[in-house]
Amino acid sequence: MSQTLQGVGAAPGLKLGQAVWWRKEKPVAPSRTITDPKSEIEKLDQAIAQAKEQIEKLREIAAERMGEEEAAVFDAHFAFLDDPAFTGEMKNRIENQKKNAEAVCQDVTEEMGALMASLDDEYMKARADDIRDVGSRLLLILLGKQPFDPSLLTPGSVVIAEELTPSDTAQFPEGVAGMVTAKGSKTAHAAIMARTLGIPAVLGLGSKIEQIKDGDTIVVDGDKGTIQINPDQDVINRVRTQIEQQEKARALALKEAKAEAKTADGKRIQVFANIGSLSDIEIALKNHAEGVGLFRTEFLYLENDHWPTEEEQYQAYAKVLSSFGERPVVIRTLDIGGDKELPYAKLPKEENPFLGHRAIRFCLANPDLFKTQLRALLRASVHGNLWIMFPMIENCSEIRQAKALLNECREELISEGVQVADKIPVGIMVEIPAAAIAADLLAKEVDFMSIGTNDLTQYTLAADRGNEQVAHLYDAAHPAVLRLVKMTCDAAAKANILVGMCGELAGDPSMTELLIGLGLAELSMSASTIPEVKQQVRSTDTAEAKKLAEQAILLEDGDQVRNLAKKG
Amino acid sequence: MSQTLQGVGAAPGLKLGQAVWWRKEKPVAPSRTITDPKSEIEKLDQAIAQAKEQIEKLREIAAERMGEEEAAVFDAHFAFLDDPAFTGEMKNRIENQKKNAEAVCQDVTEEMGALMASLDDEYMKARADDIRDVGSRLLLILLGKQPFDPSLLTPGSVVIAEELTPSDTAQFPEGVAGMVTAKGSKTAHAAIMARTLGIPAVLGLGSKIEQIKDGDTIVVDGDKGTIQINPDQDVINRVRTQIEQQEKARALALKEAKAEAKTADGKRIQVFANIGSLSDIEIALKNHAEGVGLFRTEFLYLENDHWPTEEEQYQAYAKVLSSFGERPVVIRTLDIGGDKELPYAKLPKEENPFLGHRAIRFCLANPDLFKTQLRALLRASVHGNLWIMFPMIENCSEIRQAKALLNECREELISEGVQVADKIPVGIMVEIPAAAIAADLLAKEVDFMSIGTNDLTQYTLAADRGNEQVAHLYDAAHPAVLRLVKMTCDAAAKANILVGMCGELAGDPSMTELLIGLGLAELSMSASTIPEVKQQVRSTDTAEAKKLAEQAILLEDGDQVRNLAKKG
Repeated sequence: MSQTLQGVGAAPGLKLGQAVWWRKEKPVAPSRTITDPKSEIEKLDQAIAQAKEQIEKLREIAAERMGEEEAAVFDAHFAFLDDPAFTGEMKNRIENQKKNAEAVCQDVTEEMGALMASLDDEYMKARADDIRDVGSRLLLILLGKQPFDPSLLTPGSVVIAEELTPSDTAQFPEGVAGMVTAKGSKTAHAAIMARTLGIPAVLGLGSKIEQIKDGDTIVVDGDKGTIQINPDQDVINRVRTQIEQQEKARALALKEAKAEAKTADGKRIQVFANIGSLSDIEIALKNHAEGVGLFRTEFLYLENDHWPTEEEQYQAYAKVLSSFGERPVVIRTLDIGGDKELPYAKLPKEENPFLGHRAIRFCLANPDLFKTQLRALLRASVHGNLWIMFPMIENCSEIRQAKALLNECREELISEGVQVADKIPVGIMVEIPAAAIAADLLAKEVDFMSIGTNDLTQYTLAADRGNEQVAHLYDAAHPAVLRLVKMTCDAAAKANILVGMCGELAGDPSMTELLIGLGLAELSMSASTIPEVKQQVRSTDTAEAKKLAEQAILLEDGDQVRNLAKKG
Repeated sequence: MSQTLQGVGAAPGLKLGQAVWWRKEKPVAPSRTITDPKSEIEKLDQAIAQAKEQIEKLREIAAERMGEEEAAVFDAHFAFLDDPAFTGEMKNRIENQKKNAEAVCQDVTEEMGALMASLDDEYMKARADDIRDVGSRLLLILLGKQPFDPSLLTPGSVVIAEELTPSDTAQFPEGVAGMVTAKGSKTAHAAIMARTLGIPAVLGLGSKIEQIKDGDTIVVDGDKGTIQINPDQDVINRVRTQIEQQEKARALALKEAKAEAKTADGKRIQVFANIGSLSDIEIALKNHAEGVGLFRTEFLYLENDHWPTEEEQYQAYAKVLSSFGERPVVIRTLDIGGDKELPYAKLPKEENPFLGHRAIRFCLANPDLFKTQLRALLRASVHGNLWIMFPMIENCSEIRQAKALLNECREELISEGVQVADKIPVGIMVEIPAAAIAADLLAKEVDFMSIGTNDLTQYTLAADRGNEQVAHLYDAAHPAVLRLVKMTCDAAAKANILVGMCGELAGDPSMTELLIGLGLAELSMSASTIPEVKQQVRSTDTAEAKKLAEQAILLEDGDQVRNLAKKG
């Protein structure tokens, strides 16, 4: 019997596929006294070797599908398998306590996990999750069981799960049709991954999810946030036609994606890609990004166990700049803090990290670290069209301080005989309400501004974008946010500088007309949505768009704005 | 030799006095084997009795000087002295381990403190501080030592300390001239206490503070953030004259405080008091508050170990309303969350509580708890001039939901035959940037708006007001904040409703002219500054003030605004 369930639409798209339950078993190992510790240790060693093989394979898949940043989680797992405090301690106990391998594996995992979790430190808490993950893998192997095998997923599978972690989604093979979970919200990590992968996702179904059985036919509608279980043939046919039409439109969009985007009345809108690691470069080029509107440099810091050197950074910046040739590449300086922690930075714990010592605030307080990045950027500038962008700017003085340091680095390099590009545009992220409200003052100091709607929204609405309890309040389409976008665009126009947007809102094709109407001249997004946004640009009339924007900012909330934008 | 040191001016005013070091000793107790556990337990019991006496005395002083809310910390200390897990455990160990009282006191305090601190729960962490505080008091008594004795402070003393906790400042006797610490910022709890008590404070001196010796003559300038150590007689004479003039001006202001405040050109500005507990009522009346612009209801919840009943709340609301007769009393509904936690509410831990599930968000999600407060307010409405205000409003829908619940309560009460005032103005706090930016939309739904600059500033500038690392960025006089104030005032004027301000900015006399120029018609503040603000109102010309405001919002930062305001 067909049935429709309502959840939270967390990644857009419509797909049809077969349900595959991603079950997570919690294995239990009874304790036994053993007489032959040597053979028990051998058994453990074999299991460790097998676990390493599994992890290496997973790491490969993840790196290929998701990039190095996401794959790095498996390096931590791998390292634990050689850790004397972990597997070494298991062997000690087999020897000394004469207990079986399964039981000591279970004990050590629990104890070490609990110890790490009890420390009031986010980094150690994340390590606790890793320990439990790898410990449970090892235990399953010892018990002759297997963790869920992602190769059960075939093209067309719809993954059904209680909850999915980043290390789960990193294992998705190519062609997964959809993702459905009991827990999670629009802002959950799994949701972000689904959007990156372009997989429609419906999350937060709660216990209703148990109605789904392996092999059921599932229609996932990520736009409406609904799923249909075993719909009748009529529905299936209708959905198939819809999907085909969408795929045709997508193929058409991709075919036309190479051309520049101009509105119907001829206004040029630049459509750029956001890039979070070097592996994103290829997908950006494939989707014909006209440049990079936001190159996040955090991966260089997150992937390392030390502050990346000038040379390490230079290599990465040179690579992205030369990949895009004459096309502009906006590289954002380090945005550490907030929800991004660096263990080796040893920053003090903050009550409200999003309102704390992050990004440019941290960099200006640590000029030596900042100068390493600025020198690397300047050295790389000769390899392409570099634009430098400072995040979390709140006032003019911060801009002046950052520019002074940049100048200092330039002079140092020149006196060292190093070549540096002559003209490098310098800009700021507008992501603190004050920056948008006083954009007229900041605009005088810079060559361009880029609006970061993710942070701007959470500050403007006082709603943490990672907090499920206030997820219903977090909405980048809220008229107050749109008014700040308009203020920023108006100020940029008056100062005659370029204004763009690089938050998630910029990549929503249903918002393109409205954003053009608010005055944006550049939109930067996840590469996969570039073709559709270009199509939207082409069907937009600037005068109509302006009228739409004027109506939208007088509405009451984001839902009303979205409805208007869909009609508009 | 005279010397001037620069710190952070955390509470305004100029005072001259004698340095008294508030030293905190960490006692150490060597462990001994004892033979007579009975007499050792007797010794412990005597120490417990003595500690109770000390704590009771401190509680009395604190309640009288600071109000019940601040005094409550000592109730927790007192309770621990009877706790079987604490003093009971000490006695067990004397008996079983045959150890001396000092050693078991030290051990149990350390263990219990560490245990509580290790739990990832703010409430338990605060209890850990309490345990350590009371345990160290007990140990000092056992060792025949005394904790710092606040009776060493006499009128004219300037307290010098590494750091001061709320339970320290709660013990200040009347007449303390100033407060100087090595640690702490403008936003530290000690700074807030100093402002409440009207004591000039210079914090954050660092290790330079060690230059001060007991008995030194100290000039504390809380406005400039400087202290002078042993200045020469000329300086002393000059400072004395300045202080006398200020005191005369203050006396004059107090004499004239009874009269209504009107600007020089005759515009009426209402000057109200903020009230945080029932003990604040008297000081508000003494300073001739024309009403209460913000009655915080949190103390009712924080002082209890259960959700306060309708009757308990009714009693408190009736008391404040009847105290002010016909004068308006704006009572704000519960603002739980953020930096205010209720242990019995058992709210989930949030990564960024200031951007979380707080205030009206919590109340609308818990309509039964909210209705208890609304019913108590409506029942009390017949005792005075009640205005109801909802905190943390972000959109129109929240206002409508809250008003619907209020209406539901009114109908219930009327059907129960309970009397309710006919007309109760309903308003909102404007403290989220979105509320100020879209004030035109919200103004249509309410009778009045009150701008809460403390929260509005931290969201607008993305700077946690409790985080010392970003204290340099937190400034309510930032032009972006002032622009939001102006937007709100303009929207209120257009909708023809009253607009006031109840954040800290409203109580700064040097800002009064500017605030009037931005369009505010009501200012609510700590009662002690009412007379000075009224004087400022009287010397203000509205047209000049408007010009000043127009200049101010074009400046770059808060410092420039403050300089302009001082000249203006």
